[in-house]
Amino acid sequence: MPSEFELIERYFTRRTSHTALGIGDDGALIAPTPGCEMVISTDLLVEGTHFLADTDAEDLGWKTLAVNVSDMAAMGARPRWALLAAVLPAPEGEAQACKAPAPTPEWIEAFARGFFACADEFGIDLIGGDTTRGPRAFCVTILGEVPPGQALRRDGAKPGDSIWVSGWPGRAALGLAHLQGRTVLAEPALTSCLVALHRPQARVGLGLALLGIASAAIDISDGLLADLGHILEQSQLAASLQIPDLPAAGPERDALLAGGDDYELLFTAAAALDGKVLALGEALGLPLTRIGAIVAGTPGELAVNDASGRDVTPAIRGYDHFR
Amino acid sequence: MPSEFELIERYFTRRTSHTALGIGDDGALIAPTPGCEMVISTDLLVEGTHFLADTDAEDLGWKTLAVNVSDMAAMGARPRWALLAAVLPAPEGEAQACKAPAPTPEWIEAFARGFFACADEFGIDLIGGDTTRGPRAFCVTILGEVPPGQALRRDGAKPGDSIWVSGWPGRAALGLAHLQGRTVLAEPALTSCLVALHRPQARVGLGLALLGIASAAIDISDGLLADLGHILEQSQLAASLQIPDLPAAGPERDALLAGGDDYELLFTAAAALDGKVLALGEALGLPLTRIGAIVAGTPGELAVNDASGRDVTPAIRGYDHFR
Repeated sequence: MPSEFELIERYFTRRTSHTALGIGDDGALIAPTPGCEMVISTDLLVEGTHFLADTDAEDLGWKTLAVNVSDMAAMGARPRWALLAAVLPAPEGEAQACKAPAPTPEWIEAFARGFFACADEFGIDLIGGDTTRGPRAFCVTILGEVPPGQALRRDGAKPGDSIWVSGWPGRAALGLAHLQGRTVLAEPALTSCLVALHRPQARVGLGLALLGIASAAIDISDGLLADLGHILEQSQLAASLQIPDLPAAGPERDALLAGGDDYELLFTAAAALDGKVLALGEALGLPLTRIGAIVAGTPGELAVNDASGRDVTPAIRGYDHFR
Repeated sequence: MPSEFELIERYFTRRTSHTALGIGDDGALIAPTPGCEMVISTDLLVEGTHFLADTDAEDLGWKTLAVNVSDMAAMGARPRWALLAAVLPAPEGEAQACKAPAPTPEWIEAFARGFFACADEFGIDLIGGDTTRGPRAFCVTILGEVPPGQALRRDGAKPGDSIWVSGWPGRAALGLAHLQGRTVLAEPALTSCLVALHRPQARVGLGLALLGIASAAIDISDGLLADLGHILEQSQLAASLQIPDLPAAGPERDALLAGGDDYELLFTAAAALDGKVLALGEALGLPLTRIGAIVAGTPGELAVNDASGRDVTPAIRGYDHFR
């Protein structure tokens, strides 16, 4: 029987489409597009913190890459290359500090299928990696390209800018709550929440379309309020959100404000561009909702008001993934 | 007391020298040097497999980056940017699947000191990272640049090429054997072997100088014979090594052939360039030893002969790091 290292080599070595030298040497060789800036990001996914032990392998392969693609979307970059480092438990009988079941060949194949489904969706070449034994974890590094000076950063918001969110963040957190028995969802919400959790869509098309429109952007991984907080801190501004404007109500609204792991985009744009942003959402078939405005004020301060103007800002902004 | 995440932010956020946007956004922004190819590599270091639990933090910080810099050296690239993803045990009292002591502030500071000592030595900007809780592991991605078409690859060796090695590989494996009680070293060998193990020198200067000279190159991480095997497989050729030519004897020679973790360079070059390679070693103050030749033959085949011509090829080529 082939070792898991041979299986990984078998399932993860594929023809590249825009890479001078892929997997198999001390490093990969790529030719950056002349005149572009390169955008790079690295993300760890650790079992128990970022994914549950029993997550479907194909879903996990997809999500492992998708959360990284989302970082490119949030910068307005076109994702082009990725590297995957995997820590996988050793087969039975081998010494290991922290025991966990070794991946089966079927598991590795399914993980690869999900990973490459995401790579194909976004035109990404896998150009490098590393495999070692240990408690299950994945580290992806992704590289994208953007016209120079045009990347969507967190520090560009201006007073008076509208604050926008794509899709319906919060669904992934509700899906997780259902799986963990903290809530009970019924169809059709259940399916849409589980899809949001297991097969998040990176908003690459939206990010690219926002170049020249958005003043700042971030993807929602830690929760809407927490991630808006990052924009406010880096832009040295405050924000005001209106409950009636949020694209959810009740428990879904709480999840929208605090739940992470959705990878929708949160962005700001000059209020004069409101119509342009709405038209863009229609063109992309993706709901874009104006949820508030950037205001001058104590940097990082964030107020949420209900219909009667009452301050209902939650005490806890963040989302601590699977803890 | 600051959390370990705040400590990491404090110790790992430094001014960059050649980066448009560093740590703190969804991705870093860099401007590739026009006309260069980019070389990229990612490496995992997992406790128990790649480093011992009680390794000095500063040494570990150095080595975590140095083994990645070595991949750039092996490609003949100039290292320029790095990203660091760290998995670190949670503080006491927090849930964790696999318990290990949390890093102290002093540990994190010392690790950062070693990491940046290596970054400064090679002119590398740290441009991104991620931190999560779990069993200790590090994943570094490194980016370098090389003139187009000139990178030192594994697949370029030609029949008749000389095979060269830098320095004295095997010392790191001997140092480890000493620490694990499998051998006893005396001074001055002990110090040089422990330095080779804990503070490996990436041969960046040599790699750059070999552009246009070497036909193939690799860094010795898995062991001289195993890594030479990679060149042979990818170049579809065989090799003949001569015991009297090896820069070591006795147990040191066994370690030289099988021991990994030294990060010296192994390379091939046309025999007509032998004099040029020797002169290069003198100019760099780094011993370069011709240990054999590439020959036509069964791809991947490797023969080691002693002074009397007897075949003394070891059965086991590899080095399984710390197992």
